[in-house]
Amino acid sequence: MKAVRLHGYGQRPVVEEVAEPELTGPLDVIVRIGGAGLCRTDLHIIEGQWREKSGVELPYILGHENAGWVEEVGSAVTNVQPGDAVIVHPLITCGLCRACRAGDDMHCENNLFPGISTNGGFAEKLRTNGRAVVKLPDGVEPRDVAAHADAGLTAYHAVKKAAQLLYPGTSAVVIGAGGLGHIGIQSLKVLCAARVIVVDRSEGSLELARECGADETVLADGGEVAAVRERTDGVGAEAVLDFVGEGGALEDSIAMLRDGGSHYVIGYGGVLEVPAIDIISSEINFVGNLVGTYNDLAELMTLAGEGRVELHTSAYPLEAVNDAMDDLEGGRLHGRGILIPS
Amino acid sequence: MKAVRLHGYGQRPVVEEVAEPELTGPLDVIVRIGGAGLCRTDLHIIEGQWREKSGVELPYILGHENAGWVEEVGSAVTNVQPGDAVIVHPLITCGLCRACRAGDDMHCENNLFPGISTNGGFAEKLRTNGRAVVKLPDGVEPRDVAAHADAGLTAYHAVKKAAQLLYPGTSAVVIGAGGLGHIGIQSLKVLCAARVIVVDRSEGSLELARECGADETVLADGGEVAAVRERTDGVGAEAVLDFVGEGGALEDSIAMLRDGGSHYVIGYGGVLEVPAIDIISSEINFVGNLVGTYNDLAELMTLAGEGRVELHTSAYPLEAVNDAMDDLEGGRLHGRGILIPS
Amino acid sequence: MKAVRLHGYGQRPVVEEVAEPELTGPLDVIVRIGGAGLCRTDLHIIEGQWREKSGVELPYILGHENAGWVEEVGSAVTNVQPGDAVIVHPLITCGLCRACRAGDDMHCENNLFPGISTNGGFAEKLRTNGRAVVKLPDGVEPRDVAAHADAGLTAYHAVKKAAQLLYPGTSAVVIGAGGLGHIGIQSLKVLCAARVIVVDRSEGSLELARECGADETVLADGGEVAAVRERTDGVGAEAVLDFVGEGGALEDSIAMLRDGGSHYVIGYGGVLEVPAIDIISSEINFVGNLVGTYNDLAELMTLAGEGRVELHTSAYPLEAVNDAMDDLEGGRLHGRGILIPS
Amino acid sequence: MKAVRLHGYGQRPVVEEVAEPELTGPLDVIVRIGGAGLCRTDLHIIEGQWREKSGVELPYILGHENAGWVEEVGSAVTNVQPGDAVIVHPLITCGLCRACRAGDDMHCENNLFPGISTNGGFAEKLRTNGRAVVKLPDGVEPRDVAAHADAGLTAYHAVKKAAQLLYPGTSAVVIGAGGLGHIGIQSLKVLCAARVIVVDRSEGSLELARECGADETVLADGGEVAAVRERTDGVGAEAVLDFVGEGGALEDSIAMLRDGGSHYVIGYGGVLEVPAIDIISSEINFVGNLVGTYNDLAELMTLAGEGRVELHTSAYPLEAVNDAMDDLEGGRLHGRGILIPS
Repeated sequence: MKAVRLHGYGQRPVVEEVAEPELTGPLDVIVRIGGAGLCRTDLHIIEGQWREKSGVELPYILGHENAGWVEEVGSAVTNVQPGDAVIVHPLITCGLCRACRAGDDMHCENNLFPGISTNGGFAEKLRTNGRAVVKLPDGVEPRDVAAHADAGLTAYHAVKKAAQLLYPGTSAVVIGAGGLGHIGIQSLKVLCAARVIVVDRSEGSLELARECGADETVLADGGEVAAVRERTDGVGAEAVLDFVGEGGALEDSIAMLRDGGSHYVIGYGGVLEVPAIDIISSEINFVGNLVGTYNDLAELMTLAGEGRVELHTSAYPLEAVNDAMDDLEGGRLHGRGILIPS
Repeated sequence: MKAVRLHGYGQRPVVEEVAEPELTGPLDVIVRIGGAGLCRTDLHIIEGQWREKSGVELPYILGHENAGWVEEVGSAVTNVQPGDAVIVHPLITCGLCRACRAGDDMHCENNLFPGISTNGGFAEKLRTNGRAVVKLPDGVEPRDVAAHADAGLTAYHAVKKAAQLLYPGTSAVVIGAGGLGHIGIQSLKVLCAARVIVVDRSEGSLELARECGADETVLADGGEVAAVRERTDGVGAEAVLDFVGEGGALEDSIAMLRDGGSHYVIGYGGVLEVPAIDIISSEINFVGNLVGTYNDLAELMTLAGEGRVELHTSAYPLEAVNDAMDDLEGGRLHGRGILIPS
Repeated sequence: MKAVRLHGYGQRPVVEEVAEPELTGPLDVIVRIGGAGLCRTDLHIIEGQWREKSGVELPYILGHENAGWVEEVGSAVTNVQPGDAVIVHPLITCGLCRACRAGDDMHCENNLFPGISTNGGFAEKLRTNGRAVVKLPDGVEPRDVAAHADAGLTAYHAVKKAAQLLYPGTSAVVIGAGGLGHIGIQSLKVLCAARVIVVDRSEGSLELARECGADETVLADGGEVAAVRERTDGVGAEAVLDFVGEGGALEDSIAMLRDGGSHYVIGYGGVLEVPAIDIISSEINFVGNLVGTYNDLAELMTLAGEGRVELHTSAYPLEAVNDAMDDLEGGRLHGRGILIPS
Repeated sequence: MKAVRLHGYGQRPVVEEVAEPELTGPLDVIVRIGGAGLCRTDLHIIEGQWREKSGVELPYILGHENAGWVEEVGSAVTNVQPGDAVIVHPLITCGLCRACRAGDDMHCENNLFPGISTNGGFAEKLRTNGRAVVKLPDGVEPRDVAAHADAGLTAYHAVKKAAQLLYPGTSAVVIGAGGLGHIGIQSLKVLCAARVIVVDRSEGSLELARECGADETVLADGGEVAAVRERTDGVGAEAVLDFVGEGGALEDSIAMLRDGGSHYVIGYGGVLEVPAIDIISSEINFVGNLVGTYNDLAELMTLAGEGRVELHTSAYPLEAVNDAMDDLEGGRLHGRGILIPS
């Protein structure tokens, strides 16, 4: 089959013919890919940022945001059957460790992360397992939701944590209305009654934010901290969801927080640096976020099926992966790029 | 009356005669001081670390860990009467703002912090209000519990947050078994069933930790991170309570955390510095802690009355405040120093 | 001033001249009534259902859903001033007991409940205290929100508890789309993403339910349990909010519950009767609800100010209280009846 | 192998030779039984109380509290291997439904309950699956902990829910210090700092309660409600854990509850009957409890391994099952009866 493989760090991946994946265990599932999202993390992988953390051996197939149709299932798989349209949770989990038993899929002690630590979905077919596939609601097409498998899931997971603290009258700041942020905004509007203030450097992104339901938008032109504090009675916001995580976003996020507030770290690239006395005198919190649980993804698919959370995407043929990467790097990719095998 | 006042930053405070405090409003309460705890924060105040944050005008009376007997009450005070033995919650709160209405006393919009932002309790008498005084259980002496008003309360408050995540089989690391830490250890043993691992640079403090119920102790001699990871199956602890917050403690705390774990920032002085990618790839959290609620303090007094949490203290006459400060700075003060007006 | 007083159980109340209330303590507030809601509980009080529970001495002024303008404040009141438009939380609380300190206003150890246990708001003026008054957002008129003080607050409080369990894909059943239920439906739509199924005996109420955002409506004609189970994949709903509490509603609610689900008891009159084996084998819960907290009411006012929760009301002059009661008893009162002093 | 099978309701089970269980699927596990607890539910099953709920076909093997050693495992089982000492969670779960994915094993949509709805562990061997087996800590013998699989787990699960509400200064009432209750008492002492008040009809049970750590004991001689209220400042307890559920225990539990308190229904046999007005005017809750989660059982094994929760048991040979049942019915069985295959 055709697949996009990374052969060396610092080099663009190659579209080439590889062997199809096969069932190797009773819980395995083979998915025929309907669409696979292109993520900034793919660029970070190529740059080598994940080399040590993933420990993956090259060459391997990229692609960690996958959806498609079940092709084949192992003997212990009872939740899907061939032909089912599914989205693929990013982690292959064991179902037997403490974390799995607590619904905390991200911290499975025996996990594999296709596209990061093993072969992913920039290909015609993908091997995952029965614990990773979420059936799609009727009428939902794999290519339209593929990017929810990581981008949407990560945003939704962080929003679910924040929503617990957000009652009517509170404010949630979203930093960055891009691929993750625009799902974050919609999720906030669905899960809680807080006022949503969106900060972005691009007027186009703020326009998208308003379409997604943002109550207020602030252009990040240097005055964004002051603008947010002004919109929050001078005291700051109860929650800041930072989908950027570099280039001043971390510092801005802290400066926008109310005493007792929480900063959700989602984007990355920068360094969080804050004197301990500032953490304790204002009693603020920093909350890490790593994709989300299987049930989070199932909930997001419910919302997608109800039309309450919509992805903005641009389709590319699988073979055009490098064009898509060029567009992403060049800021020309509007919405999430989706690679589609022919 | 006699009081200890700070006249200038960088200078030791002065014992001198000042006017007694008087009732000024219907919720006011005058407390005759039975004992007032000396805290490292008093040294930080003198150094000027709190100058901007507190905005207090000099000279003023230090002392934010106070207990004694009610002397006089305003017309709206119904919860105590003259003669009652009380411990004084560190904040004077309004009872009318959102935070007060939610039990979140630390974030009262109209608070005063005696000893930090207004006259404190290194004196014969203190003015606070009815919302700040907790009646002591029978048989509990003000001087024996005064240090709970800040040191104990702060430790207990952080432990209460951590205990929610600590089920049997988890581990909690306590960094620093000093004035706060030794209460933290006892509170952990009372509130949850986690294994408590204590790290300190001093063998004496580790001995105290064991008396307080520590399950394991680790000398901080450079190998403490490895020692903690070894005692936690190589994966780290679910919670790290950092009572030090400087001199490498922040970095150690992060290195001791398990994926998905939480670092409770309590001590201060240092700077928290961590790449965002490390926060998200391990999904860890940093939790600020600022004293605690009135109800936290009431619970701690219940435990003190039951003999389940005990303070280690050394008494000094109020006039000997500077000797006590010398001993604190010189590492010669064992347990918490308590100033007692004659 | 004019007031509506109950002189004997089983008798209609009398409109008569009484002395105006006066400030008696530093936290007291006198409110000039702009509107006072008429509640089925007023009928239950007249019937004597609350005689023992309230222990009130007759005659006294009815009316526990009050809003208006601050007329006069005691010396310790700092959160409102004369002229402020306010809604009145149903309980006068002390602010000093454990429950008040935890934000749990309903369980204040020293509470008074105007209109139930002391003089209420079916009058030109009402005495309450500073802890009970919530300032109205700009543009919100007291008479338009008065019924939120009990009906709205009770519904919102129960919905807040239920919303914690209601994620996308779950179902919440609302039994009874009347004075409380129609606020419950709107609150559910604002606070969570569950599907809302409304059951009522009247087609007119179901029409109102749909205007309030109900996703599905079911006529209670004897087949309502089957209809709800059919709409919940045959397994029942995660939450049932029972705003009726009599005439078969309690039995229906249990029969509509999913294993592990929760039944929120809000309406009353009937008796909950269920074999313990059914409670344990399906692990269901029954959750009592008593009005709500001050912060709940403040949040509801935020939503009212944003136009996200709207009350349906019918106005009557204060003097026409008995006409309003006739209409309520006769099923002719559409929306909540509001008594307005001339 | 030898097994105890029920051939007809209303008849005692029969010890007889049956075929050994075999692996039928990749997740299956065969356990050689080291001990199986005898439970009052076994008597209720014989009486026919579970006939409809379980829908099991006779004859079948009783026994739902099982522990032993892994004998054989299916190809998808990775968490245990032959020879491992294990306790068996009472439910065989799928790991793929929403409830399993949330850690809520009791509500698995595809569960089997050996000993209730399929063949159980009153036998030499039992078939369960990999998701049901918890490895025992070193030094813990299967026969010593078998009764934790249901009795201990159910008590621990209810206590975990209650402990969330129980801070220092609150009271938890335990009704019934028998097979479940004595584990409940120990679990309460380990998981929270509430005062534990135990009520039982037998002085012997109260003696056991005190050994288990009860702070106060009350003989149920008709004056128990008054005695509990007296020990709770006249206001009642925050939590009542009712391990009896019949013969007046349900009514007593409600009468012992504080306003806002919660009644945990664990024992069964009786009928909960309470006017809705009493539920709402005191805002009390009733919480159903059905065994517990896999992680609950793992935590309980940690506590058992640490010696912090101890079972009181009496051993019988498997063949003497009917003697054990006689002793249980006759009140002569002290601690939990454990059947041991020779």
